[in-house]
Amino acid sequence: MMPDLDPNTDLSFTRTLAVPRSLVWECWTRPEHIPHFFVPAPHTVTAVDIDLRVGGRFNTVFNVDGNEMDNKGVYLDVVAEEKLVFTDAYTEGWKPAPEPFMTAILLLADAAGGGTTYTAIARHRNPDTRKSHEDMGFHDGWGTVATQLEAYAKGLKK
Amino acid sequence: MMPDLDPNTDLSFTRTLAVPRSLVWECWTRPEHIPHFFVPAPHTVTAVDIDLRVGGRFNTVFNVDGNEMDNKGVYLDVVAEEKLVFTDAYTEGWKPAPEPFMTAILLLADAAGGGTTYTAIARHRNPDTRKSHEDMGFHDGWGTVATQLEAYAKGLKK
Repeated sequence: MMPDLDPNTDLSFTRTLAVPRSLVWECWTRPEHIPHFFVPAPHTVTAVDIDLRVGGRFNTVFNVDGNEMDNKGVYLDVVAEEKLVFTDAYTEGWKPAPEPFMTAILLLADAAGGGTTYTAIARHRNPDTRKSHEDMGFHDGWGTVATQLEAYAKGLKK
Repeated sequence: MMPDLDPNTDLSFTRTLAVPRSLVWECWTRPEHIPHFFVPAPHTVTAVDIDLRVGGRFNTVFNVDGNEMDNKGVYLDVVAEEKLVFTDAYTEGWKPAPEPFMTAILLLADAAGGGTTYTAIARHRNPDTRKSHEDMGFHDGWGTVATQLEAYAKGLKK
């Protein structure tokens, strides 16, 4: 299930979340949930536009220190409650982006003791892009997002 | 059905082929057929490895003037007998390529007078890449491939 990782171009992160993977999936794929966890606070998500299918859009707008950041991408693979692959290498309609940054693979599995084994992989075109993502704080950033996601999803649990 | 084209980054080509689209689809998606039409003669295809699904490999080796050219890619969208999208921007497993060249969209439709309306679109990351593809002979190349495909497919018709 875990894809081959290339240490020169990939970053990855695994954590166990104390919420069921159906809920993790719902948080990641429904626009009303995304603003509650998707960027590390105090940054905010100000818009989400999702068409959850292969080739469908995954567009978000962030507010980072007062600046709007427009992120456009598409889903490459969608396996409900198991795997979500998306990238900024395309916008909807398979239009290639001039300078793609990353391709993200999110993997969800049942954890042995309950909850969800949550793995995020970021793949890059070359070692320099990987390095810049690491320097931007990949591990802290995705860690904070996972913590926020877990806290938010716990509040949704019925 | 026809996607928006961007004249700065896209190249496209449409022709009517006198063979049914089921046969055109079969030629494009079964490895035993690819060597019979896929590169302009006298160049040849020496290997084909296909896993026809979203994210699956579409790998070929060409012999061009005695030099082996290794082409690795994946399918991005597969709609039987209608649409095939593939690119060299990834290899199997969603590994981004350092310098992607193009994303190809092949569209098949029933032609009004019979046969197949055959459209090939090549999308590029930037105008320079589009230009180099045009200068390499996109129109002649894809035209020759369409002619070869039609002739080969006619021989397959039952």
